[in-house]
Amino acid sequence: MSSLERRHTHPDPRIERTHEVVKREALEELAARGYGGFTIESVARRSGVAKSTIYRHWTSKLALVADALETLNVQPPGDAAHVPDAPLHRVERLLRHLSGAFADTAITGCTPALIEAAEHDPDVRAFHHTYAATRRQSLVEAIADGVADGTFPATVDRDTAAIALAGAIVYCRVMTSTPFRPDDVPKLIETVLGVTAG
Amino acid sequence: MSSLERRHTHPDPRIERTHEVVKREALEELAARGYGGFTIESVARRSGVAKSTIYRHWTSKLALVADALETLNVQPPGDAAHVPDAPLHRVERLLRHLSGAFADTAITGCTPALIEAAEHDPDVRAFHHTYAATRRQSLVEAIADGVADGTFPATVDRDTAAIALAGAIVYCRVMTSTPFRPDDVPKLIETVLGVTAG
Repeated sequence: MSSLERRHTHPDPRIERTHEVVKREALEELAARGYGGFTIESVARRSGVAKSTIYRHWTSKLALVADALETLNVQPPGDAAHVPDAPLHRVERLLRHLSGAFADTAITGCTPALIEAAEHDPDVRAFHHTYAATRRQSLVEAIADGVADGTFPATVDRDTAAIALAGAIVYCRVMTSTPFRPDDVPKLIETVLGVTAG
Repeated sequence: MSSLERRHTHPDPRIERTHEVVKREALEELAARGYGGFTIESVARRSGVAKSTIYRHWTSKLALVADALETLNVQPPGDAAHVPDAPLHRVERLLRHLSGAFADTAITGCTPALIEAAEHDPDVRAFHHTYAATRRQSLVEAIADGVADGTFPATVDRDTAAIALAGAIVYCRVMTSTPFRPDDVPKLIETVLGVTAG
């Protein structure tokens, strides 16, 4: 293995740590100032990492936000191919992850900022909607498998159920002062899908 | 009846029209510029109504937004006392109203702006959460009545079902590019509550 290959396989841990700091500070800056007020300059100030270093790795603020969300908010696998587990457990795991993500200080504040920015910036809108759709897909598949094997009632429409389940959690974050508690996921599943989880 | 009483009972239609214009322009300005950028001055410019006239009726921009939402987005009654109707119909009517409101150009843009502003402004947060809770209450009551009379399954938790149903519609508005269609309300009810509506 050449040194170049080794570097790709085992990235320099100091660089990794710096990237991690920049990504977390970027999400917190986004939450604090909104997408319009957030700049690579302000992330540089906040993180103590040189602007040039940040630009070397991320070409734009949207690229930085997208990478931060992708790598700091890792969704557990929900597809049957990777998780040979019951559909009910897969649904529960994905919903616990979603509600847990809103308890992470760096991640929770991004959603309101992205919702607002998506109204005015077509690139943010495309990113925000694609990101949500991609993550929702695991949930849709787990629900579809559960309907197919009889775990969930035949009256359940998979796409509608996915937006109701994810929607309940997002709703609590953006429309109420009480975040959805991961421990309430079984009650949500029982209400929406009519089966006992947990 | 004195002239004062008559004025209160039958408000001057010209004043009513002016107020209506100010309220609609206020919501559109809020949607276009966000809560931070929105001012009584900008609403005055946009509506062609004098700032002093606006201030005479509304003491702050939040009072104007609150009044606009309250009077331009009138929720159909959902409580059994006012609508002696089946719980299923009441749930359907409330959800059709909510999804229909997001098709109103003046109202649909407020939600993202209020969600974002609620993160930073305690008064907006209190208003936004109270407004959502008050409106959700009609839905909670209709669901509770439906569980009590056996229309909906006993596994349905009324508060959880209300946030899943309203959440699905809000989710589509703020997390996807496809608004929830009022005609899909029966499918939503069938999925979440397991009964056929429509």
